[in-house]
Amino acid sequence: MDTKTAGKPIRCKAAVARKAGEPLVIEEVLVAPPKSGEVRVRIICSSLCHSDVTFWKLRVCTLFIFSIFVESYYRIFISLALFYFLKDPPGYFPRILGHESYGVIESIGEDVHDVTEGDTVVPVFLPDCGECNTCKSPKSNICSKLPFKVGPWMHREETSRFTDLNGETIYHFLFISSFSQYTVLDVAHIVKVDPQIPPDRACLLSCGVSTGVGAALKTADVEAGSTVAIFGLGVIGLAVAEGARLRGAKRIIGVDVNEDKREVGGKFGVTDFVNSRNCGDKPVSQVIMEMTEGGADYCFECVGMASLVHEAFACCRMGWGKTIVVGVDKPGAMLSFTSFEVLHHGKTLMGSLFGNLKPKSDIQMLLKRYMDKELELDKFVTHEGSLEDINKAFELLTEGKSLRCVIWMDK
Amino acid sequence: MDTKTAGKPIRCKAAVARKAGEPLVIEEVLVAPPKSGEVRVRIICSSLCHSDVTFWKLRVCTLFIFSIFVESYYRIFISLALFYFLKDPPGYFPRILGHESYGVIESIGEDVHDVTEGDTVVPVFLPDCGECNTCKSPKSNICSKLPFKVGPWMHREETSRFTDLNGETIYHFLFISSFSQYTVLDVAHIVKVDPQIPPDRACLLSCGVSTGVGAALKTADVEAGSTVAIFGLGVIGLAVAEGARLRGAKRIIGVDVNEDKREVGGKFGVTDFVNSRNCGDKPVSQVIMEMTEGGADYCFECVGMASLVHEAFACCRMGWGKTIVVGVDKPGAMLSFTSFEVLHHGKTLMGSLFGNLKPKSDIQMLLKRYMDKELELDKFVTHEGSLEDINKAFELLTEGKSLRCVIWMDK
Repeated sequence: MDTKTAGKPIRCKAAVARKAGEPLVIEEVLVAPPKSGEVRVRIICSSLCHSDVTFWKLRVCTLFIFSIFVESYYRIFISLALFYFLKDPPGYFPRILGHESYGVIESIGEDVHDVTEGDTVVPVFLPDCGECNTCKSPKSNICSKLPFKVGPWMHREETSRFTDLNGETIYHFLFISSFSQYTVLDVAHIVKVDPQIPPDRACLLSCGVSTGVGAALKTADVEAGSTVAIFGLGVIGLAVAEGARLRGAKRIIGVDVNEDKREVGGKFGVTDFVNSRNCGDKPVSQVIMEMTEGGADYCFECVGMASLVHEAFACCRMGWGKTIVVGVDKPGAMLSFTSFEVLHHGKTLMGSLFGNLKPKSDIQMLLKRYMDKELELDKFVTHEGSLEDINKAFELLTEGKSLRCVIWMDK
Repeated sequence: MDTKTAGKPIRCKAAVARKAGEPLVIEEVLVAPPKSGEVRVRIICSSLCHSDVTFWKLRVCTLFIFSIFVESYYRIFISLALFYFLKDPPGYFPRILGHESYGVIESIGEDVHDVTEGDTVVPVFLPDCGECNTCKSPKSNICSKLPFKVGPWMHREETSRFTDLNGETIYHFLFISSFSQYTVLDVAHIVKVDPQIPPDRACLLSCGVSTGVGAALKTADVEAGSTVAIFGLGVIGLAVAEGARLRGAKRIIGVDVNEDKREVGGKFGVTDFVNSRNCGDKPVSQVIMEMTEGGADYCFECVGMASLVHEAFACCRMGWGKTIVVGVDKPGAMLSFTSFEVLHHGKTLMGSLFGNLKPKSDIQMLLKRYMDKELELDKFVTHEGSLEDINKAFELLTEGKSLRCVIWMDK
């Protein structure tokens, strides 16, 4: 190791989520050196994704989820019990959020062979150990050695590399925690990329955009000339539209409750917009059945609501329609279908985690398509700012006013 | 038309189901000439399939299904009400069952162009009109002009071509009714086949064997070297095994409650047998997870029980496992999965109606593979007999003692 900082803790700025739903605090933190199989990365930029917002709010959400199952009399009691007594609290604080990013390796731990100091990398929340049966198979992106989870620690052991200046441990998020000028990552969570690629475009491929584009290209394998319906025109849904556009889909129907998405969708190849609040007495599935004379070839649920999965399944075409579940619903949400409709309607139901993309190979494939001017990444970036602007970025995303806001960590 | 019988009713022998669950009556019936788009076929042989038994028993079954949803006090009342007052009774009697068969066209109606008198045909319950969008597409076998249903009449109009000697109408079954020496079929329900093919092998491809082989070859698209789990080793499950064997599956796990199926399965390439009654406290899915170190690549539910679909889904491999629903459960049976397992486990759920085979083209493909000595049809035939033996055939199948019994209609 030859960097000046290697082997020593680094003191740097980070945005720390100290309480659920409250503004992040920009403060100095200590980032420990990488252990075996880990690298320490200087984050150049990080974009804000909805999952950051979800986990930032998590304690509130979890209490709500539990409370809807019980009589109101008991809600307060259960909420308090969850809050104080659970061994694994529903939200982890203080925590460094952020998982869409781009950075440069500052130093490496032992047993790191494929990357070295100075390499430019895109961190990815989904592990790709490269050694297990599933990582070696082209058919799956679900590592069987390091299972996907939303951990508060490093992936291979239950420890953190972050402490605040009072010595308190700060939790990790999704094994990335990129709202810090430096972070430590397991090698299974980084993808080495060409340094010629603009950081503020490469970072988009860490999560949301890849998920949507991959859902269209890999999970659904959308065919040219086909009809696609997308439920939810957030970044993931718009990225599905981008993937469908790349494949030459003839018709891309976007469904959203936000009328502003009509115009936004148009920029992403959405040919027809349905505001599901304006469908009158008709379920949106019926509206789409009528528009398409029998259903869409591919339906993507990108919101994370079981009821919308049912709507999507209902309006995908009998015979060959595929419904792809991309959105993450609350824990325990059920998807129920009659045995008859599954068997006799010839429809397929598929989940799509990270768009079925294999991080180490497919992110490079997507970046190549960006550099070849096929995949249009620029239109996803609506805002940018410095680390000091991060709370504004949370606000814009929560209010549906931004798609991606890129935070430059050193500005 | 040049046949002597063309244009006139034909009097011939048929096995008539006169009451639910009671022995079929061999009697003479009148078979009307074919109308436009229809052909009259002399049935050479017909094999007995489980669906014949299901619909033969239907009144009893339907009452049972309804009755399990209600308090026992009301069961008798509801049963009687259903029995007497429903406009569409749950079972249709008198009825001519039978839908796996082989025959020769005796005469044709108007507007029949692709086949003529003397052509040998395999009737198929699933229509293939050849004209609609879905029939023209290679991706689907669900005709959108003549939707699949279990009708009591001819497909295009609500009339019957059968009467008994007292002038009473006899109902059709699945648009085939092959337990008659003559029957009338819509051209969408026949496949012209090479007369060189043995009738008692060709008839097997009308339903069960095709369904299972097709589920492996077309729906699941089983890969060489893969692991397959089959729930239920009836003819459909064994045909799935045959399809998996053709594709070079490395391991074929058969699950059944009937210990005799251990030996039977071996003849069809089943490498491992699990008697689900002998799994102790473990769910069968757990046994298969352990046997396969992480799950089977393909799981087929061939019994028709929602709970087994859940078991199958639970033990198909995370990352790429496919669960294929082939069995038909009772109406209203629900398949429920958590949103999480669909999204995060990378599994696919598919229905397989008639193995996704397109009748007009794929039955010929399978018959070619039989003639090329690849597809082994012989082992499915365990019994044969004359029309007089038909009630014995029902008995053998109900008791699980036969696979396919071929009934020769003129013997």
